[in-house]
Amino acid sequence: MTRQVDVAIVGAGTAGLAAMAQVRRAGCSFVLIDGGELGTTCARVGCMPSKALLQVAEDFARRRAFSRLGIDGGEALELDGPKALEHVRDLRDIFVDRVLAGTTDELGEEFIAAPARFTSLTTLLAGDQRIEARRVVIAVGSRPFVPPDWAQFAPQLLTTDTVFELESLPQRLAVIGLGAVGLEIGQALARLGVEVTGFDRLSTVAGLQDVAVSEVAVQAIGRDFPLHLGNAARIEATAKGLRVVAGEREAEVDKVLLSMGRVSNAAGLGLSELGVPVDAAGVPLHDPASMQIGDLPLFIAGDADGARQVLHEAADEGRIAGYNAARDITTRFRRRVALHITFCDPNTARVGTPFEDLDSSAAIGEMPFGPVGRALIMGKNRGLLRVYARARDGRILGAEICGPKCENLAHLLAWSVQQELGVLDLLRMPYYHPVIEEALQAALHDLLAKLDLQPSGLLEFVAD
Amino acid sequence: MTRQVDVAIVGAGTAGLAAMAQVRRAGCSFVLIDGGELGTTCARVGCMPSKALLQVAEDFARRRAFSRLGIDGGEALELDGPKALEHVRDLRDIFVDRVLAGTTDELGEEFIAAPARFTSLTTLLAGDQRIEARRVVIAVGSRPFVPPDWAQFAPQLLTTDTVFELESLPQRLAVIGLGAVGLEIGQALARLGVEVTGFDRLSTVAGLQDVAVSEVAVQAIGRDFPLHLGNAARIEATAKGLRVVAGEREAEVDKVLLSMGRVSNAAGLGLSELGVPVDAAGVPLHDPASMQIGDLPLFIAGDADGARQVLHEAADEGRIAGYNAARDITTRFRRRVALHITFCDPNTARVGTPFEDLDSSAAIGEMPFGPVGRALIMGKNRGLLRVYARARDGRILGAEICGPKCENLAHLLAWSVQQELGVLDLLRMPYYHPVIEEALQAALHDLLAKLDLQPSGLLEFVAD
Repeated sequence: MTRQVDVAIVGAGTAGLAAMAQVRRAGCSFVLIDGGELGTTCARVGCMPSKALLQVAEDFARRRAFSRLGIDGGEALELDGPKALEHVRDLRDIFVDRVLAGTTDELGEEFIAAPARFTSLTTLLAGDQRIEARRVVIAVGSRPFVPPDWAQFAPQLLTTDTVFELESLPQRLAVIGLGAVGLEIGQALARLGVEVTGFDRLSTVAGLQDVAVSEVAVQAIGRDFPLHLGNAARIEATAKGLRVVAGEREAEVDKVLLSMGRVSNAAGLGLSELGVPVDAAGVPLHDPASMQIGDLPLFIAGDADGARQVLHEAADEGRIAGYNAARDITTRFRRRVALHITFCDPNTARVGTPFEDLDSSAAIGEMPFGPVGRALIMGKNRGLLRVYARARDGRILGAEICGPKCENLAHLLAWSVQQELGVLDLLRMPYYHPVIEEALQAALHDLLAKLDLQPSGLLEFVAD
Repeated sequence: MTRQVDVAIVGAGTAGLAAMAQVRRAGCSFVLIDGGELGTTCARVGCMPSKALLQVAEDFARRRAFSRLGIDGGEALELDGPKALEHVRDLRDIFVDRVLAGTTDELGEEFIAAPARFTSLTTLLAGDQRIEARRVVIAVGSRPFVPPDWAQFAPQLLTTDTVFELESLPQRLAVIGLGAVGLEIGQALARLGVEVTGFDRLSTVAGLQDVAVSEVAVQAIGRDFPLHLGNAARIEATAKGLRVVAGEREAEVDKVLLSMGRVSNAAGLGLSELGVPVDAAGVPLHDPASMQIGDLPLFIAGDADGARQVLHEAADEGRIAGYNAARDITTRFRRRVALHITFCDPNTARVGTPFEDLDSSAAIGEMPFGPVGRALIMGKNRGLLRVYARARDGRILGAEICGPKCENLAHLLAWSVQQELGVLDLLRMPYYHPVIEEALQAALHDLLAKLDLQPSGLLEFVAD
């Protein structure tokens, strides 16, 4: 049986579901195909369980402050590892169920629970069905990268696919790869009592590029577990477990969490054989403003495209791909300002123009969190905020931050960058007291002092 | 001896110090006069000690969530009241010392530690000095309102001037007045084990005007202590303490915290007798855009002017008053968008146009925090966000919120109102995942659905 639809969407994750909503709204016929586990990477093995784990870890770690605050008995608190892990899974299941309830659960024959295989650019085999589509959205997601020669250690290796399935906490864990995922899970497990050692071949963590901010992050998070940076790690089997070695550092552990990034599943679709131009990783070449692959009737979205592997970007790409797949004319859209957050304690964030893309025409304002009133009150005053602006006119370009509540500061900054605001625009906004936003205000004053803008009048206000 | 200066500043609090900075920057001679306790209302008895107390209370209250998270032993935690109060004072002293170090400590004869008395509009007596100034900034602050006929209960009455001086926690406390101050301190003390009962003659708390939001706040914070609303309270002496009665509700207590607002100290300056026009409360009539009193060489700033009694507004008024007092031509400045936050758990916030000023041309978008992912993970999903917009074009007018991390959402919203952004502008901003900002995103989608804006294209994006 051959089935004809306007749009075939391959992959029912965040991007695929967002694409489906657009296709449906446009009144097109469609089919959604997914042969894997449903519920989205975000809810199943990504954002949500990691944040649930971090919340437990943060609550448990907070006992260290209790005595100073006049709260007695903190030292007697104990973590019930299996129960904490069960709590994480309970929350995860709520989020997964919610995704399913709103989407695939409600689809009838529009959903095919089977892997898809391309036989031409617009013909797919899925289960016992043959689908002919006018256009196809490829939203097949990604998987954790595992170096092929480490397959031999598989029983002791963890990835985000398996770490949240642990019934009890391991005693000793190495984390290889200290981007957002490794840093968050590593810190959380360390705080819950696991003896964690972190490794990354880079000399930074969480993707931070600004050395000043990165150093602060390494120092702050390094209080929870050692971070061995700057050397690629190798793994050796030992009598009792695994040894991870990097440069002159090593750790013998029971398990190794691999958090070395995610690789696109698009390469496995055989698109290259059908004449689709792909990059070295096998990802189809595409326009990030339209998500179209060349001028083909193919669109790609989400982690599968190998870039911007965070939920809100995956959803955006799904919307754009779905919108365009439902129409004869392809529209290019302006993407949102770049925003990356890790929910470690302290948070780290990157906003807007990457630090490495700044040149000598940029000015930098900064503020450590040490003296910030609210941070002092919270007992969380480690951190540094650095905000970048065009020296000529003070237009805000971006920022890197490590500090308390930076997830919120990062939104203020990203929204400001997207609106092309300048340092004076921001200084004219209200800042309540005592709030963490005052750290930004102070960094902006520092920035202003470094610019050539001529002070005239009362800078904080607009004359009526 | 008569001393002649360009500007005399009466009051060395937040407003007076901000005025001084402007006067000094303009190169004017000045004198700063204060006969009271130094260190600002904010740092001594306001924002800072209350936030320190709330932080302890929040940390202690969090034990209720521990068991669910897999943290054992939470029920054995105990509060050491005297130590907690000492911690609050320690932090307060840090903030007070910091204020002093940056200001009055560094002044020589420019500072006079004595009360000031006006003998003419521009002549002041302070200690043994007679000051003739070209212009005067009045920044004499405010004091807690205490109904005169309650003076008889003075030994058992507390205000913010005295509550942070307590060496130990009272057993039973009534809080009369449930604005920001009463609600914050009441909730904090209740969480620390004090048997607190709250009273307010209004049927709302925290100055909330939007009944939907107010009801949520009353319910959420009412879990920590009973809130008796809608009847004026009276106090009676009993054998063992005081009885507070309001309508059919009453509570016998050991102490009563009066948090019924603050009254300006300006009325005591005798300005009316010198021909200065004043309002019914004795506050000089002034222009909030210039802080000038009529066309006199007098400026008023901070709590003394009876309006906007929050730190960032007091500092603004000081800047404006100082800037103008240092110049022959008075400039009017546009003030910042209104922003009010209470740091209760959940927070409450009011932004922009007051709810009561909205008319039928406004549309309201809302989102409860119940289903918000991040709120669920934090275990803090009580609350409601309501955002107001002009129905015609979706321009954001204001918001009221009760919920977790609303202090941060309130800044995003206030900044958006000040920039006159519309609902689509906001929906085009980045929202990371999972963050509390997604509650705002959801409220904006709800708002959008209620507006007449014609959907065209992909609303979340701008076509390139």
